[in-house]
Amino acid sequence: MDRNPRVGVIGATGYAGMELVRLLLHHPKMDLTYLAGSRERDEDFSELFVHLAHAPGTPVEAFDADQCADRCDLAFVALPSGESGRIAGQLFERGIRVVDLSGDLRLPPDIYQRWYDKVPVAAALQSAAVYGLTEFNGAKVATSKLVANPGCYATAALLATKPLESAAFVDVSSPLVIDAKSGVTGAGRSVKPHLHFAELEDDFYAYRVGSHQHTPEIEQALGHRFSVVLTTQLLPMSRGIFVSVYARLNSVPTFDDIYQRYLNTYRDAPFVHVLKPGQLPHLKAVLGSNYAHIGLSLNESSRLLQVFCAIDNLQKGAAGQALQNANRMFGFSDTEGLAATSMWM
Amino acid sequence: MDRNPRVGVIGATGYAGMELVRLLLHHPKMDLTYLAGSRERDEDFSELFVHLAHAPGTPVEAFDADQCADRCDLAFVALPSGESGRIAGQLFERGIRVVDLSGDLRLPPDIYQRWYDKVPVAAALQSAAVYGLTEFNGAKVATSKLVANPGCYATAALLATKPLESAAFVDVSSPLVIDAKSGVTGAGRSVKPHLHFAELEDDFYAYRVGSHQHTPEIEQALGHRFSVVLTTQLLPMSRGIFVSVYARLNSVPTFDDIYQRYLNTYRDAPFVHVLKPGQLPHLKAVLGSNYAHIGLSLNESSRLLQVFCAIDNLQKGAAGQALQNANRMFGFSDTEGLAATSMWM
Amino acid sequence: MDRNPRVGVIGATGYAGMELVRLLLHHPKMDLTYLAGSRERDEDFSELFVHLAHAPGTPVEAFDADQCADRCDLAFVALPSGESGRIAGQLFERGIRVVDLSGDLRLPPDIYQRWYDKVPVAAALQSAAVYGLTEFNGAKVATSKLVANPGCYATAALLATKPLESAAFVDVSSPLVIDAKSGVTGAGRSVKPHLHFAELEDDFYAYRVGSHQHTPEIEQALGHRFSVVLTTQLLPMSRGIFVSVYARLNSVPTFDDIYQRYLNTYRDAPFVHVLKPGQLPHLKAVLGSNYAHIGLSLNESSRLLQVFCAIDNLQKGAAGQALQNANRMFGFSDTEGLAATSMWM
Amino acid sequence: MDRNPRVGVIGATGYAGMELVRLLLHHPKMDLTYLAGSRERDEDFSELFVHLAHAPGTPVEAFDADQCADRCDLAFVALPSGESGRIAGQLFERGIRVVDLSGDLRLPPDIYQRWYDKVPVAAALQSAAVYGLTEFNGAKVATSKLVANPGCYATAALLATKPLESAAFVDVSSPLVIDAKSGVTGAGRSVKPHLHFAELEDDFYAYRVGSHQHTPEIEQALGHRFSVVLTTQLLPMSRGIFVSVYARLNSVPTFDDIYQRYLNTYRDAPFVHVLKPGQLPHLKAVLGSNYAHIGLSLNESSRLLQVFCAIDNLQKGAAGQALQNANRMFGFSDTEGLAATSMWM
Repeated sequence: MDRNPRVGVIGATGYAGMELVRLLLHHPKMDLTYLAGSRERDEDFSELFVHLAHAPGTPVEAFDADQCADRCDLAFVALPSGESGRIAGQLFERGIRVVDLSGDLRLPPDIYQRWYDKVPVAAALQSAAVYGLTEFNGAKVATSKLVANPGCYATAALLATKPLESAAFVDVSSPLVIDAKSGVTGAGRSVKPHLHFAELEDDFYAYRVGSHQHTPEIEQALGHRFSVVLTTQLLPMSRGIFVSVYARLNSVPTFDDIYQRYLNTYRDAPFVHVLKPGQLPHLKAVLGSNYAHIGLSLNESSRLLQVFCAIDNLQKGAAGQALQNANRMFGFSDTEGLAATSMWM
Repeated sequence: MDRNPRVGVIGATGYAGMELVRLLLHHPKMDLTYLAGSRERDEDFSELFVHLAHAPGTPVEAFDADQCADRCDLAFVALPSGESGRIAGQLFERGIRVVDLSGDLRLPPDIYQRWYDKVPVAAALQSAAVYGLTEFNGAKVATSKLVANPGCYATAALLATKPLESAAFVDVSSPLVIDAKSGVTGAGRSVKPHLHFAELEDDFYAYRVGSHQHTPEIEQALGHRFSVVLTTQLLPMSRGIFVSVYARLNSVPTFDDIYQRYLNTYRDAPFVHVLKPGQLPHLKAVLGSNYAHIGLSLNESSRLLQVFCAIDNLQKGAAGQALQNANRMFGFSDTEGLAATSMWM
Repeated sequence: MDRNPRVGVIGATGYAGMELVRLLLHHPKMDLTYLAGSRERDEDFSELFVHLAHAPGTPVEAFDADQCADRCDLAFVALPSGESGRIAGQLFERGIRVVDLSGDLRLPPDIYQRWYDKVPVAAALQSAAVYGLTEFNGAKVATSKLVANPGCYATAALLATKPLESAAFVDVSSPLVIDAKSGVTGAGRSVKPHLHFAELEDDFYAYRVGSHQHTPEIEQALGHRFSVVLTTQLLPMSRGIFVSVYARLNSVPTFDDIYQRYLNTYRDAPFVHVLKPGQLPHLKAVLGSNYAHIGLSLNESSRLLQVFCAIDNLQKGAAGQALQNANRMFGFSDTEGLAATSMWM
Repeated sequence: MDRNPRVGVIGATGYAGMELVRLLLHHPKMDLTYLAGSRERDEDFSELFVHLAHAPGTPVEAFDADQCADRCDLAFVALPSGESGRIAGQLFERGIRVVDLSGDLRLPPDIYQRWYDKVPVAAALQSAAVYGLTEFNGAKVATSKLVANPGCYATAALLATKPLESAAFVDVSSPLVIDAKSGVTGAGRSVKPHLHFAELEDDFYAYRVGSHQHTPEIEQALGHRFSVVLTTQLLPMSRGIFVSVYARLNSVPTFDDIYQRYLNTYRDAPFVHVLKPGQLPHLKAVLGSNYAHIGLSLNESSRLLQVFCAIDNLQKGAAGQALQNANRMFGFSDTEGLAATSMWM
């Protein structure tokens, strides 16, 4: 291409969509040419995004598939599950590249229906989508025109556990326990009583225990080798996912064996950082960035391996990884437009 | 007694001590007659406790064992481990009742030394102390003159797991996994770089993984029936402990069997509330109170029982339970002076 | 009365209502016998108030004026402005005592209509209500059957400025500048996009500048002696109001003159604490309590007096003051049921 | 220059220093070649900056003026006042460009001594420094080799008030009231009891009323035309400064007159955004960015103009403005390396 690819965001006023808009405004090799939301046509950019008031923003339009396909080479679809996959399908049919951030394209129809309790998209559409866990499926993503971007909890859980998928020392007869904590933006921007500031400040609680829809996504991406118990819990902060994984072992390798396995897995992954032995991740150290930090702890006497992984749910867990996949689809470096690091304080 | 018992607080300017002072100022049947801190003598009460500026506070004195024993019927000792038990011993020798909030009197000397890396108190003193987990040892506490108040993490973990101690359906060959989260006051009021507001805001991380000193305390209080893996993690809020316990089962009883076991255990415990089936605890619902909220979830396919328990680390996890124990020692109702409920918002 | 008076709360599931319920459950001399909300009939108390799950709560009913009047000696009405005053009127007509927490009974109809843009209650009803700023109108409150409880910002602003009302040294030709900051619960519990946790965390902003409806309430309660400029700003925390008042002076008295004036004004006010010279209030020191803390600073060269006042918006600024007024109406001490102090941390 | 200029940061482990390091790692036209801290020599970069663990960081060294001058074309000195100016002087003497972020070079020695109570630097050194309020002194900065970077409160206050400096309609006989609020990082990273997370969470208070050292800095930068009353208050968040300015008027111009005056002043200022009439700034909309947002409100009946200004205290209030000044000194565009916008949530 002798010009920058043109990209659009459908669902631009949700949290993942807002993050995409912000990232794309700074992307050196993509041009943001189309924004659509769920609201009425032509809302003023600077009123919707007061933190981006200086940017040369385009208005947020009511979605129109032909308009979008005409004005974009790639569209990010960041709508609620149940709606997003259908829109993604319309754009895919019109021949443009699509990255869908919802759960609609990640699971076969029968499993989707059981966990999401919504009408699935056509099986053919779903099977046309590549699961966009970039570090593991990046090559497939590069040649695909339809990507199912992973879920936020699933991304953190999978980065923590994929190196164990083929490890003989893990006891597959014991469940893989994933104690996960997420910031509030994971629940979306829709207006609900329990998301009121005064209801959430200083609270912490578990929700959807035993029924969170990222459970089958994790099991599938681990080749159904493990039974996964995922516990999702709400942190009183805006961003971030922190998972504490407990894997029971058959035999106990040395810590260094495990550590090298992780280092090898992520040798070429610019965004996945395996911390030195003795270090454990701080959630804060990845907020605002596309990085994942992983730390390991081995409890020999209990034959238990603990893996901790921290990501920003809106970056590596959503918009950042979506952009990383789009970079792959256009042949750019993974890190293009994603260089930001955490501010720490 | 034809007058209210007189009580003192040693370590009144630490977080557990401050909470004791606040509770005791409102206690209808105890008179607060003595305050000692680590600072110089006779500090002005209203300067140290600006939130209690209206109270008829006594000055905070430099500690003097004879003074204290002379002016108190009972002393709460809330000093750092390594210092607290020694002071508690001096007061116990002088014949007054003592509740020690540190870890110094909870473990036999050899285990104490291994986990705390400090010089233990004399074995005789330690074995004279009753472990003050009120709901289980309350009768012993009532006749004791020396109480080792449980640790904050240990209290939450034990309230969640004691009903399982004798359950045949729990697989004791698997470790009992306790994923615990605590507010910042658990780290004490001492001034350290990592406790700076800007360092902690919006962070979450695990610390002392595999080496937290409450691990042997929990194992001991569960009769060494389980191998405990305790993971302690910091929440970006001031108060509260939330534990998520994962117990692997041999056989799977009905949910109701387990639920009834918890209800029965806590039938007469005014502060322990087992939530209805389907409900899970909110940490916020217990902050500022002495209550513990417990919720249960059974994952049949993975043979895993999950128990969630929320407490206020400074109340049920420290000062509140200490006062509950003191109530027992004086023959008062458990709830005397401890009626406060959470403000929620 | 040879039994405790029976009281009810209308609007029990809003933030001021919830706070009243919590306070009344602990009140030694009032019995909570009636709760009404805006939702359907007979909602379960423990589901609505998970933090009060242990209390012997009555169900929350749909409001019925006859039922309420029959079962209560006094009702607190804590509904949105525009609705609350009308309900208060219905109960007042039925002969029970009423404390209305809304703005509906505080201002004459014409002024109300201009600032609230809502239909006012009948002038006769409004003029029957005593303005319940307890420290100044307590005697009238004691003999009244209808109280208009002051607004949250107005309470803080008036406690800070009433001692200046008759001071000759204040320049009444200059506006009285009140820079006010409030926690989020001041905006109520209704579900609105801008009250989402992730929208408010780490934000601070001014709103309704020049048009906040507490402005005429303050001017009226100061005898229209000053032109008031009230700036209302949102703090990223749940509770609390902090006002910084700037009063321009004609002549400069000594600091001690001013200080003594404040001490004298609040000599018999158990909840208003004038801090020692050199001390300034901490908002945190009053949260969860009915106390107001006031601090003074005199800038001689600029002829400017600064007064700082901190209150809990839901206690002294709403439910606490309402209960203080109810105590007066029943002949109880101001502090009955209101002894709680701030937890500080 | 045919290579990128080399820059160093002295005080790299304080908050302003950390922010400089983060910004410089992403700067396309400057090379970060030297880091010095207050700690011992050669501390590991990735241990000190866990959020920058991926960056090719240089070790943090003990400061050595010759080393620094040898390896840098420009040094940012971000040390505590009293120490910073002296170091800046050593580097200035060695011929490299210097931007000093402390208060040491902003005020004449006598005024400095009165407000800072510290030994001033030599008068010649101080008068050699250009006051780096870029929007107003940018041309002088461009040709200077020594810049005194403005204080955080001063920057926000001056951006809000400089357009009024020459306005005939402002009553200069009335004090200019600046009610300012700052996040916690403004107090620095040093370890102090009142900066403990649990002490600050949910607090708000005024401090140094009447004695804050940015007062004379503001008066000086406004040509001593006004008497400034600066009230500094602490917000329970990490970053950000929000000022509410109250200016008394002689005569009342139209709102549009005032608005155009602000637009004109900042016509060519890429980082200063005057909000549309009716809009007021959100502090959150500038956090993490170098932008300043300004909003205006005119109270005609009280002849009072209110100006609100929001900045990030560590960017526009410290490191960002320092970098903007360095851009000027090297002939780069103001925005080079400073394009980041707020994340909003």
